[in-house]
Amino acid sequence: KAQEMDLSYRSTISIYKTILEQFNPALENLVYLGNNYLRAFHALSKAAEIYFKAIEKIGEQALQSSTSHKLGEILMQMSDTQRLLTSDLEVVAQTFHVDLLQHMEKNTKMDVQFISVSKQYELEYRRRATNLDKCMAELWRMERARDKNVREMKENVMRLRSEMQAFVSESQREAELEEKRRYRFLAEKHQILYNTLLQFYSRARGMIQTKAPQWKEQLEASRNPSNSHAQGLLAGSHSQGYPSGRLTPTHLEMVRTAVPNPPPPPVAASSHQSGLVTSAGSGSKVSAGGLAGMCGAGHVFPSELTSILFCGGLLRRMTYTDVGVCPRPFLS
Amino acid sequence: KAQEMDLSYRSTISIYKTILEQFNPALENLVYLGNNYLRAFHALSKAAEIYFKAIEKIGEQALQSSTSHKLGEILMQMSDTQRLLTSDLEVVAQTFHVDLLQHMEKNTKMDVQFISVSKQYELEYRRRATNLDKCMAELWRMERARDKNVREMKENVMRLRSEMQAFVSESQREAELEEKRRYRFLAEKHQILYNTLLQFYSRARGMIQTKAPQWKEQLEASRNPSNSHAQGLLAGSHSQGYPSGRLTPTHLEMVRTAVPNPPPPPVAASSHQSGLVTSAGSGSKVSAGGLAGMCGAGHVFPSELTSILFCGGLLRRMTYTDVGVCPRPFLS
Repeated sequence: KAQEMDLSYRSTISIYKTILEQFNPALENLVYLGNNYLRAFHALSKAAEIYFKAIEKIGEQALQSSTSHKLGEILMQMSDTQRLLTSDLEVVAQTFHVDLLQHMEKNTKMDVQFISVSKQYELEYRRRATNLDKCMAELWRMERARDKNVREMKENVMRLRSEMQAFVSESQREAELEEKRRYRFLAEKHQILYNTLLQFYSRARGMIQTKAPQWKEQLEASRNPSNSHAQGLLAGSHSQGYPSGRLTPTHLEMVRTAVPNPPPPPVAASSHQSGLVTSAGSGSKVSAGGLAGMCGAGHVFPSELTSILFCGGLLRRMTYTDVGVCPRPFLS
Repeated sequence: KAQEMDLSYRSTISIYKTILEQFNPALENLVYLGNNYLRAFHALSKAAEIYFKAIEKIGEQALQSSTSHKLGEILMQMSDTQRLLTSDLEVVAQTFHVDLLQHMEKNTKMDVQFISVSKQYELEYRRRATNLDKCMAELWRMERARDKNVREMKENVMRLRSEMQAFVSESQREAELEEKRRYRFLAEKHQILYNTLLQFYSRARGMIQTKAPQWKEQLEASRNPSNSHAQGLLAGSHSQGYPSGRLTPTHLEMVRTAVPNPPPPPVAASSHQSGLVTSAGSGSKVSAGGLAGMCGAGHVFPSELTSILFCGGLLRRMTYTDVGVCPRPFLS
């Protein structure tokens, strides 16, 4: 029974030691790491804000353009959505700061008294043990002297022993509860963090789930030039001069979309060339050649080379002929 | 018609100017900001990893304790969940890096050729305009001279004008498409980012939704000491000496849970004291007092004060009597 009490005593002291020498420093460290975490979070938040502010500005620019207006709206919406997400995430950070870090910090500061608690327990245990020993020695002396108070002393020793046992086991239970309370505190606080995160993830998911299909649809619509301002223009007064079967934007878009790596330049160039020949008509090309001298500036007439270069706009050239050298940007 | 052509020309030049002087620098800036964003993200990721590594270590410590074992498991699971979330979030960062920033950077570099495209368009426009002017002057001269080739020249001028109109409007359309392609590129890339985020949020939400109720349940169970090891001990051989109606852990827990700010110290202390009196019995207390002198160490017997201090364990004292001075840590 004395051995059991000793085990309880050692276990209690060891729990106090763990709390003092491991848990509390670990918690202090956690507060420090948590503040780093928070700082990193705010830095990210700031970086996200600046990044999406830049997206927003580009979106505003696109709003100025008649043909890219819709894309400007999408970019603005994307920036807005990110702003909402970031401010929602700030709530998580706030929870982390106020409900976790500040509580943790307060508790580590309050827990300095634990040193004295542990010391007091040790002292009280020794005091009781000494007292019990003394009374037992006294009892032994009284028994030898056949003292009339021996019965009372026996009761006294039994009471002291039972009280000490209760004290030791109750103290152990208390120490265990204290330890458990600390771990539970940590787990419960992080449970709160996870709940806040869950709310954030749910809201964020809902937000993007609403927006994403709209964006996808609008972006796909913007790929189809039949809805666009440009196509409207082309279908109007300026569309003459190019055989529509060959160079309609739809056809162009299809080629661009379907063939990221177009066929080798010579073929593409010659097909382009023949497109021009058809366009201007071989007859008029010949007559233009015949008139070159008469205009006094034969070199300014479109040569076959520059015709290829500029037929169908400046940029198409790059798409078809220069693609090997300079891959086309912004193809997607 | 010449006015219309001039408008088209100005619009085309203005679009090229916008792409060159606004869009491309904005995109370059966006790549820079995006890299900052990514750096901040990785810093956060690292901070989260370190923080939850520390939680994990505390959890491992709790696993060593028989009474806090379950809480250790919860803390470990919380750390594991965070690790999964972080590695999932790394996928989002990877998408951002590979699918957005790298593409954007590549495109800004490829887009330096745009200066020459814009210049070439200007030159070609002027060349065509000059050529048309020359031929019109020549036609006027021929008409005055009643030249036999006047009809051929008229056709030539008409062809040149129609070609120039087509060139101008097609170039404008091309410029608009280029502009649109750039904005769409940006929007589509961020659409991809949002899709990746959506996947992350959905997974994260699902993950926490599975875990959170389990944690909540287990944490609530850990509040009820009837399941705990400590209660098992107390119900065993060491539970004598304290009237169970007064000081059972359940009662204690109830007081702690229900009364974060306990009643003022004097009342609590006296109720505690009476608890002790009941526990030891007034009779034995008196007899202990009577024997004080006989043990030769009356001061080591529990005085009423120290009885209050140590009755029910060292720590309860702080809960009840010192709460005004030192608020109790880890109460939740």
